[in-house]
Amino acid sequence: MAVVVQNIQRAAPEVIDALGAAGTATVHEAQGRTGCLRSYMRPIYSGAKIAGSAVTISAAPGDNWMVHVAIEQLQPGDILVLSPTSPCDNGYFGDLLATSAQARGCRGLIIEAGVRDIADLKQMGFPVWSKAISAQGTVKETLGSVNIPIVCAGQIIDAGDVICADDDGVVVVKCGDATDVLAKARARLDAEEAKRKRLETGDLGLDIYEMRPRLEAKGLKYI
Amino acid sequence: MAVVVQNIQRAAPEVIDALGAAGTATVHEAQGRTGCLRSYMRPIYSGAKIAGSAVTISAAPGDNWMVHVAIEQLQPGDILVLSPTSPCDNGYFGDLLATSAQARGCRGLIIEAGVRDIADLKQMGFPVWSKAISAQGTVKETLGSVNIPIVCAGQIIDAGDVICADDDGVVVVKCGDATDVLAKARARLDAEEAKRKRLETGDLGLDIYEMRPRLEAKGLKYI
Amino acid sequence: MAVVVQNIQRAAPEVIDALGAAGTATVHEAQGRTGCLRSYMRPIYSGAKIAGSAVTISAAPGDNWMVHVAIEQLQPGDILVLSPTSPCDNGYFGDLLATSAQARGCRGLIIEAGVRDIADLKQMGFPVWSKAISAQGTVKETLGSVNIPIVCAGQIIDAGDVICADDDGVVVVKCGDATDVLAKARARLDAEEAKRKRLETGDLGLDIYEMRPRLEAKGLKYI
Amino acid sequence: MAVVVQNIQRAAPEVIDALGAAGTATVHEAQGRTGCLRSYMRPIYSGAKIAGSAVTISAAPGDNWMVHVAIEQLQPGDILVLSPTSPCDNGYFGDLLATSAQARGCRGLIIEAGVRDIADLKQMGFPVWSKAISAQGTVKETLGSVNIPIVCAGQIIDAGDVICADDDGVVVVKCGDATDVLAKARARLDAEEAKRKRLETGDLGLDIYEMRPRLEAKGLKYI
Amino acid sequence: MAVVVQNIQRAAPEVIDALGAAGTATVHEAQGRTGCLRSYMRPIYSGAKIAGSAVTISAAPGDNWMVHVAIEQLQPGDILVLSPTSPCDNGYFGDLLATSAQARGCRGLIIEAGVRDIADLKQMGFPVWSKAISAQGTVKETLGSVNIPIVCAGQIIDAGDVICADDDGVVVVKCGDATDVLAKARARLDAEEAKRKRLETGDLGLDIYEMRPRLEAKGLKYI
Amino acid sequence: MAVVVQNIQRAAPEVIDALGAAGTATVHEAQGRTGCLRSYMRPIYSGAKIAGSAVTISAAPGDNWMVHVAIEQLQPGDILVLSPTSPCDNGYFGDLLATSAQARGCRGLIIEAGVRDIADLKQMGFPVWSKAISAQGTVKETLGSVNIPIVCAGQIIDAGDVICADDDGVVVVKCGDATDVLAKARARLDAEEAKRKRLETGDLGLDIYEMRPRLEAKGLKYI
Repeated sequence: MAVVVQNIQRAAPEVIDALGAAGTATVHEAQGRTGCLRSYMRPIYSGAKIAGSAVTISAAPGDNWMVHVAIEQLQPGDILVLSPTSPCDNGYFGDLLATSAQARGCRGLIIEAGVRDIADLKQMGFPVWSKAISAQGTVKETLGSVNIPIVCAGQIIDAGDVICADDDGVVVVKCGDATDVLAKARARLDAEEAKRKRLETGDLGLDIYEMRPRLEAKGLKYI
Repeated sequence: MAVVVQNIQRAAPEVIDALGAAGTATVHEAQGRTGCLRSYMRPIYSGAKIAGSAVTISAAPGDNWMVHVAIEQLQPGDILVLSPTSPCDNGYFGDLLATSAQARGCRGLIIEAGVRDIADLKQMGFPVWSKAISAQGTVKETLGSVNIPIVCAGQIIDAGDVICADDDGVVVVKCGDATDVLAKARARLDAEEAKRKRLETGDLGLDIYEMRPRLEAKGLKYI
Repeated sequence: MAVVVQNIQRAAPEVIDALGAAGTATVHEAQGRTGCLRSYMRPIYSGAKIAGSAVTISAAPGDNWMVHVAIEQLQPGDILVLSPTSPCDNGYFGDLLATSAQARGCRGLIIEAGVRDIADLKQMGFPVWSKAISAQGTVKETLGSVNIPIVCAGQIIDAGDVICADDDGVVVVKCGDATDVLAKARARLDAEEAKRKRLETGDLGLDIYEMRPRLEAKGLKYI
Repeated sequence: MAVVVQNIQRAAPEVIDALGAAGTATVHEAQGRTGCLRSYMRPIYSGAKIAGSAVTISAAPGDNWMVHVAIEQLQPGDILVLSPTSPCDNGYFGDLLATSAQARGCRGLIIEAGVRDIADLKQMGFPVWSKAISAQGTVKETLGSVNIPIVCAGQIIDAGDVICADDDGVVVVKCGDATDVLAKARARLDAEEAKRKRLETGDLGLDIYEMRPRLEAKGLKYI
Repeated sequence: MAVVVQNIQRAAPEVIDALGAAGTATVHEAQGRTGCLRSYMRPIYSGAKIAGSAVTISAAPGDNWMVHVAIEQLQPGDILVLSPTSPCDNGYFGDLLATSAQARGCRGLIIEAGVRDIADLKQMGFPVWSKAISAQGTVKETLGSVNIPIVCAGQIIDAGDVICADDDGVVVVKCGDATDVLAKARARLDAEEAKRKRLETGDLGLDIYEMRPRLEAKGLKYI
Repeated sequence: MAVVVQNIQRAAPEVIDALGAAGTATVHEAQGRTGCLRSYMRPIYSGAKIAGSAVTISAAPGDNWMVHVAIEQLQPGDILVLSPTSPCDNGYFGDLLATSAQARGCRGLIIEAGVRDIADLKQMGFPVWSKAISAQGTVKETLGSVNIPIVCAGQIIDAGDVICADDDGVVVVKCGDATDVLAKARARLDAEEAKRKRLETGDLGLDIYEMRPRLEAKGLKYI
């Protein structure tokens, strides 16, 4: 049952980078308000904004052996995504693993568990979104799998899916939807820019979005 | 049942500003250790310290329609305070709404739910205290109310109450109590300054506050 | 039952300082992956890295009286460690107490409860690792004890134990083990440095740690 | 600041009893989907279904002194409602206090904290809805208040409000709304009975509530 | 994006029933310790033990409209499985919906949200495993989907998957794996029966499973 | 570092049994309001009330190997107490292990993690107090220790300590304090019985405990 899937499909690099630049809130809206990981996934330092192809890891609680296996599967532009098979906050990942992953072009880590060596990771510029920060280490005794579909923080992640992460959290885009979602995200950004200009002048969303008739029809009373 | 109360009473601007400068810990002590919102209400970035008059929003879970309605009710110096009718961590509020609120003089947002576009909000200088950060958006389908009494993070908030918020959290002062609380806060700050000077020299609180006899009377043993 | 133990044994200052420099993740590994406090203990600001001798406080929920008592017991290089007798998030500690503790050479506070005056503490350079941040104050009505063994965030802390704390959290080292743990931590740091150099060049942990045969023996399949 | 309000207004006993019989889910719907306390308020044993007038208690964390004060204010048909001034799970209430409350006609306790002597309370038929069960006792050192407005589990409770509680949780009805809410609850129960009969035969809600056109208009696709 | 998938594949009824009888702990072990939903999914009453084919529902927070749509898709032996698109504890489901679902042969509900009318559901014999119990109702304003793949309590659920649920929680078996998993579960039950007999006599697992040499090899010391 | 301590000191059986009969709330009060485990430790079925000598287990997250080792150390009247080295909710223990433990005279299990086969354990009359119920199993790969001091749910437990558990939770009594605590518990029960009789007649705690003067002195106002 413990497998490493070696060939995975990835989206086009320019599409991935553009999704990353669009940001998680926009990407999530562009794909119909779907794909957000749970809000307890937080960046270990603020300001990072990345996108990349998921290399997934399913690991036993308190056991980071499979991270070593997964690093061999990394290609430049990838993001590691780890989910334990039951809830765990151990520090699965620290500066040595980050050094190794970064040497292979990895852009960051998404982990529904703990991470450590925060100060070093920040200095290296290796961003992590995690459920916990913990100095508590792990063992290397139990097999897991790499690049199988996993559930991470409430979302299904297939290997090769596009992961976008920034200060607002983490969003997953299915590999096959990436181009389409990007087009919608760009349209959305353009529309937002126009609205922002009007809102800055004091125009109200009530008027810009023509909400007043519908509010009245639903029965809102001003008193 | 869905109403917008348009005329609300606010405290005097100079009282509000002085309460903000006093800070939440002092204000809360000055009013008899009351008024603190729950500690899960955290600032999205550190260093902001504000006070303002509450414009309250009661909204359905996952529905931010009423935020647009509330923004029309804002006056310069106000603070939006949103509470969902059941627990929800969705990102109800982002940079477009902040642009609109800021254009009307709003000083910030207190929300017992989620917020997004954190990086933008920080750059704009629009502070938020929230229960969560989440890229997950909302719909606009269900009515709520504006400027009715709400419970936010364990405290009753009436429209026009003074909201103080800083790195320690959020405290509410009833509109009618603001002047009195400010006087007590100032007295407290003066007293603290004198004590700080003595403590810096190594004097002990045990002596400054004359605690030794009472500790002995209660039975504390030194061994 | 309320006692203050006045004479406690401390580890050698140079050992304490060296453990602090080694960092929590390394120290915890060096003593066999033990001693980490729960991951909800977080620093109120990032970048602090300290070690010191524990002066322990057992306090009633919502009552910080014993902090004043404990401060008298502080010696330069000590760290206050407070655990309430039942879960509580009140702000037991703020800038006045920090001023007093700092005047006596205290290096910081570990508290399984709340703390306040965060902005001031940061400015003073008085680091705190806490379960919560809260402006909510406390009373001074119920006795507790100082320098008795306590459980703080899942670990037994005896007065005089070495507390190490940094961005990864908090680790406790038994006073009598400090020298031995330091030796192991140093050996570990040396070994890590060598590995880091290899990993930076792209060498894999799978090869450096000779994991391939054991993975195969356990049945890992590459597909 | 510590007060006991001695005269409070209560709803008519027959209205209170009828609201209790209607049950929390129906009462909450009848008043426009409002009034539910947070879902972490759970009964200590299943099957109890009560309503009564709130006698409110605001108590310090870990201090149950005010419960004794509140019991003197009880009239037959009342329900004690306690909220600590900051989160606490201590066992504020046990079989002795229940004996005393029951002797004065009290119907139960709603407490956003802990309770103990569960086996005895069940045997006595004294129902409690609480956030926690804990053998951990409390002290009697700090004053609080009785019959002031409190926030309990996310709802504002004024003394004399009607509290309904059953296996689904707890709902509050403002004293002045009780008669009106009861009328709506009864209408709702009648309507539900008719619908239940149709649903039992296999008729679909889609047809009974005529949902199909609206679902189609919103764009639902069957594939 | 809102769709109802009408034709789904189900496992053979006798296989489903046999998996239900085997129980969740055994089934989960038989498929390699996989498939358990998170432990916060608890039965609303003890003693129920069911299995059935999943009819999945993806619903907006606080909106149960799609439950009505899903009930039309039910066949005898099915189990409803609902997951909100963001965390929510509202009572999506009560006795009327249960009456309707039961009339169509539905065996129960798995819901990562709230449920209400607990006393009625127990009396009807309609079991539910939920994250919460709450009288708080929902609206019918936003579309969702039926029989699309969802994530419920940490597991991917495809329509037609076999859901097993009992006092230990909920486990999902992929539709295509059901026959194979059942065979392994039966083998496991047989083996357990033999072991139970030996353990009842006082024989030790250390000897039955021949653990002593491996414990010694790993370095366990008896002192 | 992995050790099994084979000889532990236990309290006298008649003292243990009498502490169990006194119940956790009384025992905890008798020893100065100390010794309660955290309130998330709940019985898997109601009505059990036990006491016994602790056989402690420190286990890795998701690994129940040491339970087999601990069972060999059991003597009639003992209680297993397990704490994982980091938070984990896996089902470490089920009916086979319970059969084995019961065959050796074990009275129950206290586990700061998960347990499974709940229905079987209830039928066997093998009580468990746990943090979670979960069908999710564990592996047997990593060593831990037996009969070393552990922290379980916030309390220090030494092997041989007396564990009392009932519907109110779990309390630990140090082995050497057992006789003294029992004497105080008995005195307390006698005093409570007298008070209960008075309270049943409607006498108030305010009068029985002579609280009125102290309430007045502290400043309580009746209005």
